Amino acid sequence: MKVFVTGGAGFVGSSLTDHLIANGHDVVVYDNFSTGREQFLERAAGSGRLTVVRGDVLDAGAVLRAMRGCDAVCHIAANADVRFGLLHPRRDLEQNTIATFNVLEAMRALDIRRLIFSSTGSIYGEPSVFPTPEDAPFPVQTSLYGASKLACEGMITAYCEGYGMRASIFRCVSILGERYTHGHVFDFVKSLRADPTRLRVLGDGRQRKSYLYIGDCAAAMLLALEKAPDDVNIFNLGADEYCEVTDSVRWITERLGVKPQVEYTGGARGWIGDSPFIFLDCSRLRRLGWRPALSIREGVERTVDYLTSHAWMLEART
Amino acid sequence: MKVFVTGGAGFVGSSLTDHLIANGHDVVVYDNFSTGREQFLERAAGSGRLTVVRGDVLDAGAVLRAMRGCDAVCHIAANADVRFGLLHPRRDLEQNTIATFNVLEAMRALDIRRLIFSSTGSIYGEPSVFPTPEDAPFPVQTSLYGASKLACEGMITAYCEGYGMRASIFRCVSILGERYTHGHVFDFVKSLRADPTRLRVLGDGRQRKSYLYIGDCAAAMLLALEKAPDDVNIFNLGADEYCEVTDSVRWITERLGVKPQVEYTGGARGWIGDSPFIFLDCSRLRRLGWRPALSIREGVERTVDYLTSHAWMLEART
Repeated sequence: MKVFVTGGAGFVGSSLTDHLIANGHDVVVYDNFSTGREQFLERAAGSGRLTVVRGDVLDAGAVLRAMRGCDAVCHIAANADVRFGLLHPRRDLEQNTIATFNVLEAMRALDIRRLIFSSTGSIYGEPSVFPTPEDAPFPVQTSLYGASKLACEGMITAYCEGYGMRASIFRCVSILGERYTHGHVFDFVKSLRADPTRLRVLGDGRQRKSYLYIGDCAAAMLLALEKAPDDVNIFNLGADEYCEVTDSVRWITERLGVKPQVEYTGGARGWIGDSPFIFLDCSRLRRLGWRPALSIREGVERTVDYLTSHAWMLEART
Repeated sequence: MKVFVTGGAGFVGSSLTDHLIANGHDVVVYDNFSTGREQFLERAAGSGRLTVVRGDVLDAGAVLRAMRGCDAVCHIAANADVRFGLLHPRRDLEQNTIATFNVLEAMRALDIRRLIFSSTGSIYGEPSVFPTPEDAPFPVQTSLYGASKLACEGMITAYCEGYGMRASIFRCVSILGERYTHGHVFDFVKSLRADPTRLRVLGDGRQRKSYLYIGDCAAAMLLALEKAPDDVNIFNLGADEYCEVTDSVRWITERLGVKPQVEYTGGARGWIGDSPFIFLDCSRLRRLGWRPALSIREGVERTVDYLTSHAWMLEART
């Protein structure tokens, strides 16, 4: 199958591209390389199964032209910056909501009916049920990022109902691992390389979070592309465990062999819209046969190792 | 208080404007008069408390200029056409999602913090719980209209969290009554005036729906503007009852004094995305002191009487 991957040069998209190619698919990567990197596609390029199109998802005509001839779409491109959403509210609307509309319209025009979409566990706001199932009580959005992904999910499912598409929507916890370009492990490793004697942590460190290794994320998306049973498939995607930020700090500093003085800025949330507890019920995806290979701790440690051995990534734009 | 009402020349907006003025507020109506009408504002214009600005909610600069000096916003303007959404998917994105973003951005720029928003019970898709409460299981969208209103709700609540706004969001059933410009009563009365011997009804007629009289809708919004207790207030807005389409057909034909042969097109839904059962739990709004004055039947009959005595409305664009 020929699969169109938006954001295919990015952290999640390029790993998914590798997995797709390893499973015999051809891939058209569509990426504006704003956070994507040529280097992330080197392995895929060697396969002879990769086409790269440089373009923006806001350019509806370019999306349509690049998508022609594909059999399925993995829409991974997004503004994934939760924390600074309030500084530029238009960004989530444009890069998430409107971009997803463009992708859906191109699919409709070309009669492409299979879609994988990367949504977020942030869509649950501050949930009342843990682990949070996909049919949790109707949540109230607390971040512009979550709100924009909610808007995308709504459009996608309405397109499935109205135009006969089939979609798998993944509500992901924070993903980490190789090619990881932003997030708390990135920030902590970068800070500790600059000054190993101290570390500033947003919030009181008691925030409970779940993380998932990128390989487990890509495997889940590939599985859904091939086996998701319904027209609308909504899957939580995360580990069956959570950790405190303090745990993560300990794993990172031990892995780096540093003993910084840790300063907490205080408060239950690291920033406005930060969810103090993320823990998703992923049994629906497990029933499809998926199992994560790495624990949260293993994922964090592998990310530290990757960043240590790819220190140039820490020096680039963050 | 000076209140900015988008869509203030329309069916719901003009009634809300009348209620606001009757309660001592000044109103700035902002409307592009695409479905709004000058006639609907005649009563308000006589009060000396009304300013009318002709403009489109997609013109962000014009919204900002017109909103300056207001204390609160009632964002009622919308593409309210659920049934034909699939014919022009861009319309819901633009006129609902992006328009609401423009309204929120203008409020943020002007530091206006109080918002009333007309959402929809369609946001519940095909719910599993009846009467459906505001915290029903996370719904799957079945219409582009519902999806766009969901997108609006998400943005609004994220703005409340992030920028200190206060909002009341109303998930409304179908509203009817004076100045009603579209919907099944409109369609049936128009059809029966043209040919009283037959009536074509979409679906099998067993769809269960709830309707609310416009006066009860406007009263609820006014109450929330003055008394809603939280930063984010989400209210179902409907009657504590439902009827079948067949009931409504009987009330309408009896009121008109006609005995048509009724033909049902069949199927549980009148169109793709039609919800076969809408019945909202409105106890949260009742706890604020709101009570509907009219039953569904009374609302339908009053609508029939209004359309009969304002037959020019039936002749205009539908």
